[in-house]
Amino acid sequence: MFSRRIDRLAGSLIREILQLTQRPEVISFAAGLPAPDVMPHTDLSDVPANMRQYGPTEGEMELRAAVAQQLGALGRECTPEQVLITSGSQQGVDLVAKLFIDEGTPVALESPTYLAAIQAFRLFGAEFIDLPLSSDGIAPTALEAAIAQRRPAFVYLIPNFQNPSGYCYSAQKRQEIAGVLEASGVPLVEDEPYRELMYDPVDRTPISSLLKNTPWIYLGSFSKTVCPGMRIGYLACSPELFPLFVRLKQATDLHSNRPAQWWIARLVSSPAHNSNLLHLRDYYRIRRDAMDAALQRHFRDLADWETPHGGLFFWVRLKHACDTRLLLPQALKRNVAFMPGEPFYANGIETSGAIRLNFSHATPERIETGIAILADVVRARMA
Amino acid sequence: MFSRRIDRLAGSLIREILQLTQRPEVISFAAGLPAPDVMPHTDLSDVPANMRQYGPTEGEMELRAAVAQQLGALGRECTPEQVLITSGSQQGVDLVAKLFIDEGTPVALESPTYLAAIQAFRLFGAEFIDLPLSSDGIAPTALEAAIAQRRPAFVYLIPNFQNPSGYCYSAQKRQEIAGVLEASGVPLVEDEPYRELMYDPVDRTPISSLLKNTPWIYLGSFSKTVCPGMRIGYLACSPELFPLFVRLKQATDLHSNRPAQWWIARLVSSPAHNSNLLHLRDYYRIRRDAMDAALQRHFRDLADWETPHGGLFFWVRLKHACDTRLLLPQALKRNVAFMPGEPFYANGIETSGAIRLNFSHATPERIETGIAILADVVRARMA
Repeated sequence: MFSRRIDRLAGSLIREILQLTQRPEVISFAAGLPAPDVMPHTDLSDVPANMRQYGPTEGEMELRAAVAQQLGALGRECTPEQVLITSGSQQGVDLVAKLFIDEGTPVALESPTYLAAIQAFRLFGAEFIDLPLSSDGIAPTALEAAIAQRRPAFVYLIPNFQNPSGYCYSAQKRQEIAGVLEASGVPLVEDEPYRELMYDPVDRTPISSLLKNTPWIYLGSFSKTVCPGMRIGYLACSPELFPLFVRLKQATDLHSNRPAQWWIARLVSSPAHNSNLLHLRDYYRIRRDAMDAALQRHFRDLADWETPHGGLFFWVRLKHACDTRLLLPQALKRNVAFMPGEPFYANGIETSGAIRLNFSHATPERIETGIAILADVVRARMA
Repeated sequence: MFSRRIDRLAGSLIREILQLTQRPEVISFAAGLPAPDVMPHTDLSDVPANMRQYGPTEGEMELRAAVAQQLGALGRECTPEQVLITSGSQQGVDLVAKLFIDEGTPVALESPTYLAAIQAFRLFGAEFIDLPLSSDGIAPTALEAAIAQRRPAFVYLIPNFQNPSGYCYSAQKRQEIAGVLEASGVPLVEDEPYRELMYDPVDRTPISSLLKNTPWIYLGSFSKTVCPGMRIGYLACSPELFPLFVRLKQATDLHSNRPAQWWIARLVSSPAHNSNLLHLRDYYRIRRDAMDAALQRHFRDLADWETPHGGLFFWVRLKHACDTRLLLPQALKRNVAFMPGEPFYANGIETSGAIRLNFSHATPERIETGIAILADVVRARMA
């Protein structure tokens, strides 16, 4: 009765956990929720009347221009005509899947990687080539081997403050990976929702900016720097791909919400935006440091982790590897939520031994309380 | 390099025509643009702060409840838990395609029918079974034969004030079609963006409300009754389908814009909404009548048409059938735009001999001027 696609339609563990963590007494490290304290006031009082009418599929020109300028400042030169405004960067993932993926199409991605990208690519029938992720990025040799053995339709990477690991690619790996892609011509999909959430200075050169002749797609979001409820993101790409994405977007939802585009364009072009970003970084850095300190206090003998230089997550690798999904019911019983590591592996894994902890949503006090409880839960499991 | 899907990615004639009709001197009967005069003022000054955060994939409960109540009043009983808020009703079409269509999946639809539905279904690989449309609906016997010969995954119908024809199904055909669907169990997708644009009293009973054991999906929109720039529509369905649509929506864009949902929920629940709808009907009825009068004056010897009881379009069938795409350059030269009929036929047609004329966007004066020019163009072509 249904398409074959529906056999691949996974339930979302994140969705189920989120529903369990609605109660205010739960300390949740599970989701990647930005903190309401650093979201700007939504002043939509003077939306122009013409924003009520149908608009261009490509998006509002003011916002496209602002995005092009941001990317230019990062070294990824592009014109406003290469920017498509999307309904959240999740829509960028859907459009990429539509452009590239048939049943059985090979796709190379980091292992572990962003859960909702795995789900969207799988829905369209992708087969996954894992690229094991270290704290400074994937190994260029592994990418080269993957391309030689089973040329993927594209390589999907999250080079800055990756989800779930928090890892950030080194400048050298960015160069080497660009070299491999340039030699092979395999398209790059660079997903960068966390780019602006930088707490320590690191190299954030887009890998796509190092490509000359290879097709590239860059996905971005205003969910973390402005607010997620607006569902506004963007996709920039090499010029030959742009008309295809516009037509795919048109068949998907015609265009994105116009008042939100108008408001965000004004906001990110205002002088206040930079100071907002600095404030947001200070605010999240305090929480990052609070979680780091709490982990030092309670998890030193239990786990290893890298302190993330940005983003929203710690990736905590338990010294006694186990299926971390089994820890979740115990933690939830004590009103603490986290994301088990297993679902972030595209080809499945029985025992990741790692958990993802979000530090942006809970206060420093609740972070300390929650991490102490979580350490108890891990210790009890080990016993 | 791309998915096979991309071979089926059509350029949009509507999109190209729209770009040609941006100049203010063009009298456009091409698009289905609502008139700004009847769009409510977008008062988004007091959007609650919590609307900035991520929200439920299903949509805001207030809006889901308002939709369920509207459908109940039409006879299609459903609970708020059966309503999914979508990013425009175009997204409903995309989600339906994802649920049902693999390469080669047969889909039955009216001939002619909504262009963007043809495009979205084709993108996913549908093969089309045409159901010829008369002014009171498709023939139930034709539907029965189509199901017997080549059971489609679903039947896609626009029973009220159809696009492009403006036709409205008779009460008797609604009953008979429901009977055929009920006997076969083939799911119904009922697309109803024009439902509220009713200028003469007619039966608008949803065909889905006449089904007892057959899966149904009902697509609706706030683009015509509120405004399209918000991109808010909805999908209601039989309970067994709902969890699948929620997961598909989650993989597509997580959820729809929250401030727009909040604003529309308040608006459509306010006592003013009914008087807004009455005003809107009066406003469009005047334009419908103006176009009817202009056609009587200029097209009586050139064409046949039914006066539509609702919606946005006249479907004008020329007495000398021709490929109406050939008329378009001549009309555009004289600053009048319309939609040729040929693209509305899913299986292609060389000579539709019909044109679609929108009457909602131009003033009555410009309607008279434009129809006179169009008659000249048709006459010149015939000569």
